[in-house]
Amino acid sequence: VRVAIQGERGSFSHKAALALVPELGVLRSCALSPEVFECLVRGDADAAVVPIENSLAGSVLEHYDLLLAHPLHIAAEFLLRIGHNLIAAPGVTLGEVREVYSHPVALAQCRRFFAEHPQCRPVPFYDTAGAVVEAVRSGAPVAAIAGSHAVREHGGSMLVAGIEDNPENYTRFLLLYPGESASTASTGPVNKVSLVFSVLNEPGSLVRALQIFARRGLNLTRLESRPVPGSPWEYVFYTDYQLGLEDEAASALVELNGCCSFVKELGRYTAAAAVSA
Amino acid sequence: VRVAIQGERGSFSHKAALALVPELGVLRSCALSPEVFECLVRGDADAAVVPIENSLAGSVLEHYDLLLAHPLHIAAEFLLRIGHNLIAAPGVTLGEVREVYSHPVALAQCRRFFAEHPQCRPVPFYDTAGAVVEAVRSGAPVAAIAGSHAVREHGGSMLVAGIEDNPENYTRFLLLYPGESASTASTGPVNKVSLVFSVLNEPGSLVRALQIFARRGLNLTRLESRPVPGSPWEYVFYTDYQLGLEDEAASALVELNGCCSFVKELGRYTAAAAVSA
Repeated sequence: VRVAIQGERGSFSHKAALALVPELGVLRSCALSPEVFECLVRGDADAAVVPIENSLAGSVLEHYDLLLAHPLHIAAEFLLRIGHNLIAAPGVTLGEVREVYSHPVALAQCRRFFAEHPQCRPVPFYDTAGAVVEAVRSGAPVAAIAGSHAVREHGGSMLVAGIEDNPENYTRFLLLYPGESASTASTGPVNKVSLVFSVLNEPGSLVRALQIFARRGLNLTRLESRPVPGSPWEYVFYTDYQLGLEDEAASALVELNGCCSFVKELGRYTAAAAVSA
Repeated sequence: VRVAIQGERGSFSHKAALALVPELGVLRSCALSPEVFECLVRGDADAAVVPIENSLAGSVLEHYDLLLAHPLHIAAEFLLRIGHNLIAAPGVTLGEVREVYSHPVALAQCRRFFAEHPQCRPVPFYDTAGAVVEAVRSGAPVAAIAGSHAVREHGGSMLVAGIEDNPENYTRFLLLYPGESASTASTGPVNKVSLVFSVLNEPGSLVRALQIFARRGLNLTRLESRPVPGSPWEYVFYTDYQLGLEDEAASALVELNGCCSFVKELGRYTAAAAVSA
């Protein structure tokens, strides 16, 4: 199975892909997020794994926009515990390090480390694992911030482990397959639904849509809004809800279509039960 | 009046500050957003002006978090039409330009220009106007993307005007004063309220909160969610609603306090009526 991710081998997306697709064969590493979605839709990958939300940084807004813009569906989700580590080329010591490369979100989650080590300057990089590759290759007094699995993939030595500011740091990843509806049966119970909708800009329109879930006792776990390009101050709402009986998803969808100006289901899948460290 | 903004003279924030605070005396230019809020709370500025939302890029999530974290209130809003221009040092021609500096959001809003001019490489910079200062100063074959007012502030020549991909490009700015409640009377009618709340994670809890507005016929113009740091998968919701009678704001607040785990009003002010080009 060929799986597309944003980032390199040893990135958090790679770790999530290994968990979501145990039969992973070929990893398609993309530098930018739009390439991941194009790769999937073009048929150059059988699946894609993307982060959609981090418990500290919030939503990956670009990925919400890309979900809506491509014919695909969500087949599963996975919660990954995010731990950050300072990694450098073998032989480089902490005292020598002047620049630290990593993804901007990772840099922002290690503010205490930078406050305590003012000689280290944070430098934004497109990927955590790519930053380790660069630090190991460069021979300069630089280091990278990445997950411990990046060391196993790319060498380098771990100078400081666990430098994240907040240990309650989790990222939710989605497994995406091409096509707008599920072609294969889910392996677990279908108990979570993701969809996107928009409502007319008038008093009570959003409440009328959300009542469709509330009346059925369906718990909303997420509500994210994004602007509609070209229509200032209009929005689409992305929502996830927990499902009891699968019948409820179909009847909720029919009712939503009756009161929304736009509705698209993004996937029905098994809610991630526990968090993986 | 001393006004703090993120960015330099000639930035979009500066233009919005001139519109929101006609008596602007001293401009406090801050490189990073947290400095703007700290400057206001510390008393080094009398007011702050910050972008909160762009009609194409969406919310400025960092500013939502900072609004909640500081004792301040929203006193007014302003909608600014965003036009992007390619600006270089006098004498530099379009054919010579190899690097283009600007704020990452501005670079992302000029994708067509970069597709049509592959010899120009986009380079992220902390501020649009700061990018013009650098381009004019450097003497290298570089340019900047910024508003036309940056030329008036910093010199340079406009190589190409109006290079934004989408003309429906507006940014909503907020005027912030220190202290959690308004100390001075509003100059216009109070017809808009911003507040932040959180609800228990149970079916229907968000709908119960939003019904408080719907029952009064109050139109929600915005609903944004942000994670609660340290409590994975819990969220606060930022909402703006249009107000008829000011009494309704007080009664809605009382009722919200009865069904939410947390409520904080961020400001009552005059809705921006029209968009300024």
